Amino acid sequence: MTLKNYASQKCPIAEALRIVGDQWTILILRDALMGYSRFEEFQGRLGISRNLLARRLKQLVADGLLEKTAIAGSRRSAYRPTDKAGDLHFVLAALADWGGRWQGDAETTRLAYTTDDGATPVGLRFVRLPDGTAVDWSDVRVERSRPRRRRETGQSR
Amino acid sequence: MTLKNYASQKCPIAEALRIVGDQWTILILRDALMGYSRFEEFQGRLGISRNLLARRLKQLVADGLLEKTAIAGSRRSAYRPTDKAGDLHFVLAALADWGGRWQGDAETTRLAYTTDDGATPVGLRFVRLPDGTAVDWSDVRVERSRPRRRRETGQSR
Repeated sequence: MTLKNYASQKCPIAEALRIVGDQWTILILRDALMGYSRFEEFQGRLGISRNLLARRLKQLVADGLLEKTAIAGSRRSAYRPTDKAGDLHFVLAALADWGGRWQGDAETTRLAYTTDDGATPVGLRFVRLPDGTAVDWSDVRVERSRPRRRRETGQSR
Repeated sequence: MTLKNYASQKCPIAEALRIVGDQWTILILRDALMGYSRFEEFQGRLGISRNLLARRLKQLVADGLLEKTAIAGSRRSAYRPTDKAGDLHFVLAALADWGGRWQGDAETTRLAYTTDDGATPVGLRFVRLPDGTAVDWSDVRVERSRPRRRRETGQSR
């Protein structure tokens, strides 16, 4: 894969990281997408301090990733992932894939991605959009499609 | 996509985030994969403090993501991405994709992913591994393949 120059400023990777570029944020969203929804559940699973968790949940609501709703008959609230959070599936799958390959050991849980019937293994790949066929990442080119300034020079490679 | 329960501990997402779960780390790797290699280049592009950048680079070398080499005829060093760093292509592409869709505005640089000849647009998708055909993420199931304890109960959904 060739990464051609693009402006650091307003790069969509940086934009994404402004919202989810914190490991607690990603782990809270992982758990929310698994169906956990209550403060005590997140706290118990993550072992995060209550203050820090409260701040992160508030920010996730403000950023439109979690929706806070009252639980009937309880003073407590539920936090449900929004569509914006659900759309992080590729980010989570890519992290799981990389983490399992490069950081995992024998104790690391393996995540098996399959078709919904469990019959066929699936994996994350680049595909040609017109026909949905896989293309090796080494044959993929990335370019910024809306140049905002002249191409930078000074590549050191 | 259905995320079935799996242990928080030793989850490969958490393992990945222990290494790359910091926005500076990802942005340094993004720039390294674009071909930038020198301290001054990273510093100028990211506007990060020199102390913080030095710490992050040192950690990235320790974690096996960057390789530090001497530049001939200079007292300075070059930092080159390793294969482990290069294998983050799906993580970066997934972040760029999500960031462009949910956080971008008219000023945000768009990243265009194409085949190497620039002719065909490509995108990140789940594919059936046997034949490389795309499958919609809503038809993908995730399960941990090496259960380490009995299935948890208490899903709140």
